[in-house]
Amino acid sequence: MTLPLPGTGEPSLPEAPASGDMPPEEFRRRGHEVVDWMAGYLAEVGGLPVLPQATPGEVMARLPPSAPEVGEGFDEILRDFRATILPAVTHWNHPAFFAYFATTGSGPGILGEMLAAALNVNAMVWRSSPAATELEQLATAWVRQLVGLPEAFQGVINDTASSSTLYALAAAREALLPEAVEEGLGVAPRGRVYASSEAHSSVHKAVITLGLGRGGLRKVEADGAFRMDPGALARAMAEDVARGVRPLAVVATVGTTSTTSVDPVAEVAEVAAGHGAWLHVDAAYAGPAAALSELAHHFQGWERADSVVLNPHKWLFTPVDCSILYCRRPERLAMAFSLTPEYLRTREREEGGATDLMDYGVSLGRRFRALKLWFVLRWFGAEGIRARLREHLRLAALLAGWIEDEPGWELVAPVPFSTVVFRRVEEGLSPEEEGRLNLALLERVNRSGEAFLSHTALGGRVAIRLAIGNLRTGEAHVARAWELLRAAAAEREVAASLA
Amino acid sequence: MTLPLPGTGEPSLPEAPASGDMPPEEFRRRGHEVVDWMAGYLAEVGGLPVLPQATPGEVMARLPPSAPEVGEGFDEILRDFRATILPAVTHWNHPAFFAYFATTGSGPGILGEMLAAALNVNAMVWRSSPAATELEQLATAWVRQLVGLPEAFQGVINDTASSSTLYALAAAREALLPEAVEEGLGVAPRGRVYASSEAHSSVHKAVITLGLGRGGLRKVEADGAFRMDPGALARAMAEDVARGVRPLAVVATVGTTSTTSVDPVAEVAEVAAGHGAWLHVDAAYAGPAAALSELAHHFQGWERADSVVLNPHKWLFTPVDCSILYCRRPERLAMAFSLTPEYLRTREREEGGATDLMDYGVSLGRRFRALKLWFVLRWFGAEGIRARLREHLRLAALLAGWIEDEPGWELVAPVPFSTVVFRRVEEGLSPEEEGRLNLALLERVNRSGEAFLSHTALGGRVAIRLAIGNLRTGEAHVARAWELLRAAAAEREVAASLA
Repeated sequence: MTLPLPGTGEPSLPEAPASGDMPPEEFRRRGHEVVDWMAGYLAEVGGLPVLPQATPGEVMARLPPSAPEVGEGFDEILRDFRATILPAVTHWNHPAFFAYFATTGSGPGILGEMLAAALNVNAMVWRSSPAATELEQLATAWVRQLVGLPEAFQGVINDTASSSTLYALAAAREALLPEAVEEGLGVAPRGRVYASSEAHSSVHKAVITLGLGRGGLRKVEADGAFRMDPGALARAMAEDVARGVRPLAVVATVGTTSTTSVDPVAEVAEVAAGHGAWLHVDAAYAGPAAALSELAHHFQGWERADSVVLNPHKWLFTPVDCSILYCRRPERLAMAFSLTPEYLRTREREEGGATDLMDYGVSLGRRFRALKLWFVLRWFGAEGIRARLREHLRLAALLAGWIEDEPGWELVAPVPFSTVVFRRVEEGLSPEEEGRLNLALLERVNRSGEAFLSHTALGGRVAIRLAIGNLRTGEAHVARAWELLRAAAAEREVAASLA
Repeated sequence: MTLPLPGTGEPSLPEAPASGDMPPEEFRRRGHEVVDWMAGYLAEVGGLPVLPQATPGEVMARLPPSAPEVGEGFDEILRDFRATILPAVTHWNHPAFFAYFATTGSGPGILGEMLAAALNVNAMVWRSSPAATELEQLATAWVRQLVGLPEAFQGVINDTASSSTLYALAAAREALLPEAVEEGLGVAPRGRVYASSEAHSSVHKAVITLGLGRGGLRKVEADGAFRMDPGALARAMAEDVARGVRPLAVVATVGTTSTTSVDPVAEVAEVAAGHGAWLHVDAAYAGPAAALSELAHHFQGWERADSVVLNPHKWLFTPVDCSILYCRRPERLAMAFSLTPEYLRTREREEGGATDLMDYGVSLGRRFRALKLWFVLRWFGAEGIRARLREHLRLAALLAGWIEDEPGWELVAPVPFSTVVFRRVEEGLSPEEEGRLNLALLERVNRSGEAFLSHTALGGRVAIRLAIGNLRTGEAHVARAWELLRAAAAEREVAASLA
């Protein structure tokens, strides 16, 4: 494919002037070039290899080891972007990106991000950008209504679900281990957090960061469909309490990373409430699907949570990064994090009425992330968002049907959302051999550049994940990935029979 | 002023189509409109009021309480951006933005951010974007050389200094309290972190987050020039050790937030080393100035740190967010944070050679922040960056001279970098009256819309801060801010004499 690439053929401008910023007229001209490139990229990204054929160290080796002494022309910078960076980019905006969780940096989201970059505000306190603060409150309220969470939940935007979960669990620790607030965990009873064995690794990272130790997370058994077993949770909590451990929080997941399984949140909430523990719901990926009435059953009980994380940068078409942390009692977050030095005191804060969003997390610096989210919500509209989510569900169900109908392949988990988890099975293979086979098929498909899928392990057995979430993904892309997988398996069979 | 605003006069396009993303041709057209607006904004932002005349709740009240059911045209979205958002934006890219630390979202940085938004990659593992991972390693190495840190320091990019400091102190805790790694701080000796009373509030937030309690930070006395007193540090650490407390880390600051004072890092390093404590240097603001040979004395000893934080989004012309954490032993960060679930294992990782940047912090999701930084470094070049930093130093020295020469005003701290801290002094005023006077003068200037300054408190007395760091700031902007302050003071005097 030939993308309309900028900076070709034109004479290079003189170097950057010795003072000030790039001159506005050059910025305008370069901006138009870059937009043309971006539009071409978004139109034609499907023709690029999703996963690049790069080897570790290759990019660094192709670039100078030091910054230039004298500023360079923008043509040179774009030339290297095109020649060296682009061939080593994994194309997350590609319609056949099916790895991890597929995402979309959508057109309206990108345009919002462009404006935010030009404004370059920091929404740490209300005064440091009233519009950024209030649009964050508004856009998160819009999403809250879209997904049907109660009005009591107030949202703040963080970079990632990892941070959102860390902040939620910090609030839980501060609330439930008041003995530790002044002198630290050393003078408090031992606290613990509970999550299923299928919960995201960020929960464990948060627990470690909070000083609870690697053993501060107790992983609760999941059932055959990879859902937390509320009975096992109740037993684990009771056992710990009997040993003097104080349960701080339970993390329930709606849409786990491996299989997008759904913990029985209502039952988990009941168990958590019995111990007065904080309930955090990780709906980072699946949360937007709560906008669909036919999926309401997956979200039953999440309204009982103390906090919920939902990432618009996953399945809500918003460029990274944008993670919403909803908190039923945001003052609990502020209790954990509010420390206002004199240089951040403002009249609006002291006289009341203004919210300083820095109080709800660790990061003082806060980009104007609400702008892109607000652009996405307005441009697609609630109806448009629901239609697009439903299309992804339809594609996933279609693939699941093909897999079920095909001998030698099996679905290994239910498909509640837009991610399908499956494997190749062949008679007489040990789990290790089967694992190697599935990884080899996956690698073969990924190396083709036509699609990019990832894998997981379930009960010690490898499985292939195909996650759908990009707005450019159509039925043909899913069908082609499936065809590539079957072809790879068939070739292996032929090779084995000839060997 | 009249900015060339998009979306005026043109008929609205039909609503968003029912599937897929914004069509590429519409994206192209809207992108050009947005770039024209951005170019106009950057050219004319100096004509807008820096600080808006908004009141809390005003923006939210002017926008619908829910997302639209049906998608809207881009003209409508931009119309509201212009009519409702823009008048409530605090203009950080304004040449007379002198509050907090002044920053620049520069032209090349914005263009890099645009491309990153279109690519929308997540550099969590090498495979998920080889170019983003390696460019992050390269660009941080370029900055390292620019500021003269030893080669042993490896950089990773985080959102903010708050996160960078949190991660550094987490690594310190894991390394120095190995008893806590498995079972948490409850089974370990008490650990403590030391920083001067002038250190940034993010150090305290990090200590709290890490489970060390609010008392887990010991604030060490500063001297008359607001620098940490190494003798006081040594006494505090010895006293704590005698009581069974284990010193975990010392945070030295080069360029504190209130006055940009410089801790005596070499002496602090000596004291920290005596206790085997981790040395973290917070050079979030001032770090880039280490590129200037004439300022090398301020950075003496920082090469002995275990970790250093430096924010290109502060004084290195890079749009927010972009904070570099340099770590001499990055494996210590990985020891704290590395947890690799099966779904994130890759061949490149297992077979060696590839770095997975997710291992060096809490956030799994990682934007392609290196791209904008690399654009900035290339476009300005080392020489261009030094020239611009020197111009900011010149402007700050000029203002400091004017203040020194003016009766009724005093500098309250040395001016090692580009931030000037001063106050109005009048005979016979109590500290409270003097504080009210200075805040009133500040408020008067800020309300003019012509400049935006912030304040701090030093020894219980209010001081005004004027921070220089925007590439569009010229001598006239600084002179005008000074003129406004003097005029406000004169008016007060006249009013007082007539009363």
